[in-house]
Amino acid sequence: MKQFVDGLVLDMLEIRRRRPLVFSMTNFVVMNETANALLAVGASPVMSDAIEEAVEMAGISSALVLNIGTLYPRSVDSMVEAGRAANRKGIPVVLDPVGAGATRLRTDSARRILSEVDVTILRANQGEAMAVAGLESRVRGVDSVDDIGEFTDIAIRIAEGIGCPVAVTGRTDVITDGSQTWLCDNGHPLLQAVTGTGCTVTALVGAFLAVNPDVTRAAAGALGLFGMCGELAAQGARGPGSFEIALRDFLWSVEEEQVRAGVKVRRP
Amino acid sequence: MKQFVDGLVLDMLEIRRRRPLVFSMTNFVVMNETANALLAVGASPVMSDAIEEAVEMAGISSALVLNIGTLYPRSVDSMVEAGRAANRKGIPVVLDPVGAGATRLRTDSARRILSEVDVTILRANQGEAMAVAGLESRVRGVDSVDDIGEFTDIAIRIAEGIGCPVAVTGRTDVITDGSQTWLCDNGHPLLQAVTGTGCTVTALVGAFLAVNPDVTRAAAGALGLFGMCGELAAQGARGPGSFEIALRDFLWSVEEEQVRAGVKVRRP
Amino acid sequence: MKQFVDGLVLDMLEIRRRRPLVFSMTNFVVMNETANALLAVGASPVMSDAIEEAVEMAGISSALVLNIGTLYPRSVDSMVEAGRAANRKGIPVVLDPVGAGATRLRTDSARRILSEVDVTILRANQGEAMAVAGLESRVRGVDSVDDIGEFTDIAIRIAEGIGCPVAVTGRTDVITDGSQTWLCDNGHPLLQAVTGTGCTVTALVGAFLAVNPDVTRAAAGALGLFGMCGELAAQGARGPGSFEIALRDFLWSVEEEQVRAGVKVRRP
Repeated sequence: MKQFVDGLVLDMLEIRRRRPLVFSMTNFVVMNETANALLAVGASPVMSDAIEEAVEMAGISSALVLNIGTLYPRSVDSMVEAGRAANRKGIPVVLDPVGAGATRLRTDSARRILSEVDVTILRANQGEAMAVAGLESRVRGVDSVDDIGEFTDIAIRIAEGIGCPVAVTGRTDVITDGSQTWLCDNGHPLLQAVTGTGCTVTALVGAFLAVNPDVTRAAAGALGLFGMCGELAAQGARGPGSFEIALRDFLWSVEEEQVRAGVKVRRP
Repeated sequence: MKQFVDGLVLDMLEIRRRRPLVFSMTNFVVMNETANALLAVGASPVMSDAIEEAVEMAGISSALVLNIGTLYPRSVDSMVEAGRAANRKGIPVVLDPVGAGATRLRTDSARRILSEVDVTILRANQGEAMAVAGLESRVRGVDSVDDIGEFTDIAIRIAEGIGCPVAVTGRTDVITDGSQTWLCDNGHPLLQAVTGTGCTVTALVGAFLAVNPDVTRAAAGALGLFGMCGELAAQGARGPGSFEIALRDFLWSVEEEQVRAGVKVRRP
Repeated sequence: MKQFVDGLVLDMLEIRRRRPLVFSMTNFVVMNETANALLAVGASPVMSDAIEEAVEMAGISSALVLNIGTLYPRSVDSMVEAGRAANRKGIPVVLDPVGAGATRLRTDSARRILSEVDVTILRANQGEAMAVAGLESRVRGVDSVDDIGEFTDIAIRIAEGIGCPVAVTGRTDVITDGSQTWLCDNGHPLLQAVTGTGCTVTALVGAFLAVNPDVTRAAAGALGLFGMCGELAAQGARGPGSFEIALRDFLWSVEEEQVRAGVKVRRP
């Protein structure tokens, strides 16, 4: 996987050099942490969900991140408006269907965005991805699909079902567009003890897509980098508080050699 | 109080084991910190204030936390809707009337929720609790009611007046349903230097009620645990920033023996 | 500048003694951090953007901070309502036109507030200040106006153009009401790697104005103190995460002697 890591290092340095503007329509719980993670990797965050400026914001941005974590029916209109503007401009759109499957509003909102916007990649956990793809009734106890071979097949079916690449995070992350698939083994249990780490990695996928048009490769790089920084941060952490601070520090300070030594992305 | 602490330790371990879903309709200032505190004690937070999913969210949750810290008239409708769904389902409802007494909108909103929802417990500071109960005109300079005997009497009157148990925090916290009363001496001045610590302990009361139906005992346990973790966090803190991080770490890592040694809950 | 620093120290101690209530109508990204910074310097934050309580909140506050960072058309109505109430009461109003120049909604909203409210001081970065003043077409690449002499002239023109004092932050901050001008050289590059530091210093300007009616002097003091705490925080930081925590700790713990040794405010 030397070629993969070479590309990831280039993306990382390119983000630090270009400082791409990542426009995030995201939830109120994680706005601050998401903006700070984008700043830490070198990107420039801008947050808004006012429909009145959605098109203009998309016009000056290099990527758009849509996250339905705290949802109002009106927000979905803004997201569709911004998504279409992003499509017209040709910049990547990442969708995080937070809580899809938990309530109809969320499942329906994610599907509406997928049907009205050309989404570049869906970043979700297993349950959310399956709910969006309408697989929830067929597979029970989705969070326990620990057989990565089995879940890779499911992820491919999801990508085919919704018509766009997916980055499904779990114990092992699966990133696939149906034909090209990557697996990522980075991560640490403390990431589950901090709110919004899923939303944060979604935003980082946006930053990576802003500098690399190879969708699954860019997304796998973002997931590998974030998970690896989580592993580094866990080493000195006394709990989720100090862990979160160290994670942000590592996103900022991580060096090429650490990436080469620590990223665990592979083919299935 | 050995029996009390035995129960508190059981609640704490039960939260870590069961990971109850605590549905929070809370304010924008503290959403992230509240979610992280819930995760730190082992609970699962979900945040929303969309009326469209209020009933469904209540349906999958084990406790509901209503917090009026940043208020829109529309939010109160959502809160009432979720509160009624929680009542139908029989899960506990905690109300934090942030800023009651400061503006009419807040006092009225808190009272409307109390009249339309069967609130399990009100968690407030002295001034807010008195404003909700309509005692503000009779007692002046409420934050200076430092005579705990006097304030215990007031808290009992508040509980009787609003018709539900109260957990009133101050130098000494008073938790009472009118007949059973607990006092808690845990806490540290640095808790006043961090925004949202009141909202956070309200959320923790929700997590404790999710595993223990003895309302005043569960609430006193949450207050004791939180205040004690504040004391531990203050020991190495250089200010409110490092204090807040350490507080979260201790909520996560605190051990049974520390709880037994540090919790100061007593009868009046 | 001994006289200036004497005044700054007095302001700092006065905030810690009086704990002025600073009413912030601010954006969702930075609400928590802003509230915590206000608490760290000793002020009392209250956050709301409900028009229903805007007048009452202004009535109990000692300063009003308006920040358009995450904007809804309705928020501007609330801000105008609160601003007028602040004007009637005679308390200072600080405006932070976040993102002015980036979208029409933001530029127009900032101008509307300036025209309908008697703003005490505008706190902005170079580009935002120029956009608000309508200078954007005449000066290109505004963030590169590194010649401080040149930018001081521009800041004076902005203050005259919009009819109120300005605090324009950049490598060197310029605070001017057109006749009295201060330059501040404090700060650290890590402040750019944390979201909302501009919004935070705006809130601190509000706290300083609450205790000192000399507008440019109070604002220059807030900028100097914040930038100096940033320098202190950077010394032990491993990245933007630990930096942000240390910054908050220093705002809380900073001593008179550190202020006297570290603040770099001067005349042009």
